[in-house]
Amino acid sequence: MIAEIISTGTELLLGQIVNTNAQYLAKKMNELGIDVLHQSTVGDNPSRMAEVIAHALERSDLVVTTGGLGPTLGDITKEVTARLLNRAMYLHKPSESRIRQIFASRNMLMPESNLRQAMMPEAAIIIDNDRGTAPGVILEESDKTIIHLPGPPQEMQWMFETAIVPYFRQRFGLQSVIVSRVLRTFGVSESALEEKIKDFVLAQSNPTLALLARSGEIHLRITAKGQTEAEATERIATLEQALRSRVGKAIFGIDDETLELVTGRQLSENNLTIALAESCTGGLVTSRLTDIPGSSRYLIGSLVSYSNQIKREILGVSEQILTDCGAVSEETAILMAKQVRERFMTDIGVGVTGIAGPDGATATKPVGLVYIAVVGAQGVECVKHQFSGQRTGIKQRAANAALFQVMRFIENYASDREK
Amino acid sequence: MIAEIISTGTELLLGQIVNTNAQYLAKKMNELGIDVLHQSTVGDNPSRMAEVIAHALERSDLVVTTGGLGPTLGDITKEVTARLLNRAMYLHKPSESRIRQIFASRNMLMPESNLRQAMMPEAAIIIDNDRGTAPGVILEESDKTIIHLPGPPQEMQWMFETAIVPYFRQRFGLQSVIVSRVLRTFGVSESALEEKIKDFVLAQSNPTLALLARSGEIHLRITAKGQTEAEATERIATLEQALRSRVGKAIFGIDDETLELVTGRQLSENNLTIALAESCTGGLVTSRLTDIPGSSRYLIGSLVSYSNQIKREILGVSEQILTDCGAVSEETAILMAKQVRERFMTDIGVGVTGIAGPDGATATKPVGLVYIAVVGAQGVECVKHQFSGQRTGIKQRAANAALFQVMRFIENYASDREK
Repeated sequence: MIAEIISTGTELLLGQIVNTNAQYLAKKMNELGIDVLHQSTVGDNPSRMAEVIAHALERSDLVVTTGGLGPTLGDITKEVTARLLNRAMYLHKPSESRIRQIFASRNMLMPESNLRQAMMPEAAIIIDNDRGTAPGVILEESDKTIIHLPGPPQEMQWMFETAIVPYFRQRFGLQSVIVSRVLRTFGVSESALEEKIKDFVLAQSNPTLALLARSGEIHLRITAKGQTEAEATERIATLEQALRSRVGKAIFGIDDETLELVTGRQLSENNLTIALAESCTGGLVTSRLTDIPGSSRYLIGSLVSYSNQIKREILGVSEQILTDCGAVSEETAILMAKQVRERFMTDIGVGVTGIAGPDGATATKPVGLVYIAVVGAQGVECVKHQFSGQRTGIKQRAANAALFQVMRFIENYASDREK
Repeated sequence: MIAEIISTGTELLLGQIVNTNAQYLAKKMNELGIDVLHQSTVGDNPSRMAEVIAHALERSDLVVTTGGLGPTLGDITKEVTARLLNRAMYLHKPSESRIRQIFASRNMLMPESNLRQAMMPEAAIIIDNDRGTAPGVILEESDKTIIHLPGPPQEMQWMFETAIVPYFRQRFGLQSVIVSRVLRTFGVSESALEEKIKDFVLAQSNPTLALLARSGEIHLRITAKGQTEAEATERIATLEQALRSRVGKAIFGIDDETLELVTGRQLSENNLTIALAESCTGGLVTSRLTDIPGSSRYLIGSLVSYSNQIKREILGVSEQILTDCGAVSEETAILMAKQVRERFMTDIGVGVTGIAGPDGATATKPVGLVYIAVVGAQGVECVKHQFSGQRTGIKQRAANAALFQVMRFIENYASDREK
């Protein structure tokens, strides 16, 4: 079976955005064993879009489009295909009420133009969109299949995973199953990690093993093929075990388990509460912890002590220390952690202070210098970091390091208790 | 003149890499006034590549390809075009010696296979490559032009800037310049915004006008062509003025100006300091404000009062109010703002409290309910919101709304003073 991906949208033709949708779909469809032999991009122009889609239907059995399902006059994908296939458009009542509900739930009046999103070609299979207002569309024309997905990546990806993959399996009777699992590591460089597991990387065939750098983490992606899911999963398990014995504690989570998720789980499993005093990270660590549902069980609160005034007056860091050691110092980080733990009456206190830049550096304290202190019943731990990069990058790296440090701190705490 | 970009390479069809070359070329060519109406991607397969290039030459005057100029057997772009145009291939001596020099300079022996990179279609214009071994190729066939550029982005970009742009200007006598400007709006839905400015959207030719949804904002992109940059800018200014008089205060910034940037500018221009008490946003608003260099000038600090205990004991929100009105209420939001402003001794205090979900909803207080209060010398303003979506989405929308509310609050403050 031959497949083609068509990306629509003038912003792509103008080069204003990079086409990540085409890459995502190509990758996923190849993993399913579907050969993507063509990718095309066309703007919101009816005749040119019609020409591109018609040409695709000539040379391919399966055509997947993204974009052009929105409420505006520039959103024409469904109309173009309907005309090509000589199908009338009709108002799909269930979609209409879904869209009306979305606006109602936002206490907004639905502009009539949004009804365009509920207009569908006859005999289309409609896919609900839980991430937005635009439904997806599947059209079967004899042995050809054309699928319209929304343009916003997270809507498109959600729809592909939940509705299109199952549809593909059923319509094309896809046999071989591909399963992949990601082992997320932190605190080890990509090259150091590769050294440790080089033989596995070289020996790979099924499962395959890939190292991916992802926002400060290095991910080990294991991908296995099998006749059944069980077979593929078994293959993964074997390699995972071998990798864990090599890499050890640098692996903190799998798949979608973020640093904030695993740290949060550690806190709640150990019935520990936490409070943070953040300076250079400006509340980012706390914000990431609160991205996790139920975090209110363990996160009591935080103080963003951005100015020394707040460090002194609200936190109670002594003027002495601020002048002798400076706001960016091990002493201040530890005191911030101790004070916030005491004031907020939590089991664990965290202090983060540093220089995010571009200003604020001194001869002895460069941009990227960050101290992270964690304080608990079992003691104090302070780590000095020197991060590189831009302001927001330094904030991100510092937040990663803080979350990882808390995670490991609790782990040791738990293991201490077991002794 | 109509142009088409063709990206070659199986790694693109497999989704192993994102196609940044197509975006780069589309952007640059549009800026030169060349209309890119099609983008295509095809693998290293002779017949399919021939079909794609032939089809492109039918519908376009100018075809630019990237990739397939390397030394391996999979690099076939030049050969495919030569066959299409019935041109023989010959060994281009200057390119051969250039390539030999490159290897010599690296004290490496040149594999014979690299000679393929010096094989050229007859009557081709050869472009030296100062960034790699693969020369670029320009083929003129009556009124059609086909250009082959190397795949590695920095080789391709260097070649485009230094050789292709001058070639375009000379061959196509390019006069026109394209300038575009983005007006960023907040607080109006895409469809509602389009209703307001429909006539401009329909009437568009030069400048053109596009609506783009971008992480909770709607952007109005104006793109104008002109003989000179001044002329294009003038065209933009005229439409911008008209749009501003229609859309008004929903427009908060232009181009790269984020909500946190503009809000921060408002604070520093008015010499105002700010402190925040965040509940459901968990420090996200403060973190975004601190993404801006120099924010320590106006951001004194914040309190993430995630638990009622902190709201009571650190902020001083009375038990009375928490029990009578609840933690998620207008009264609590206002008190949070007032108290943090007082304790942190700032000009402006902000209080954000709500239900990010998925838990915590009650019969009267659904997930997504958020109160945002801003307090300053000139008074108090509290807005009730009902956001939809997932937990992190609700946090993001609440943070956007808070930043926007502070921005407008200061604006009114400033205008009050002027009276």
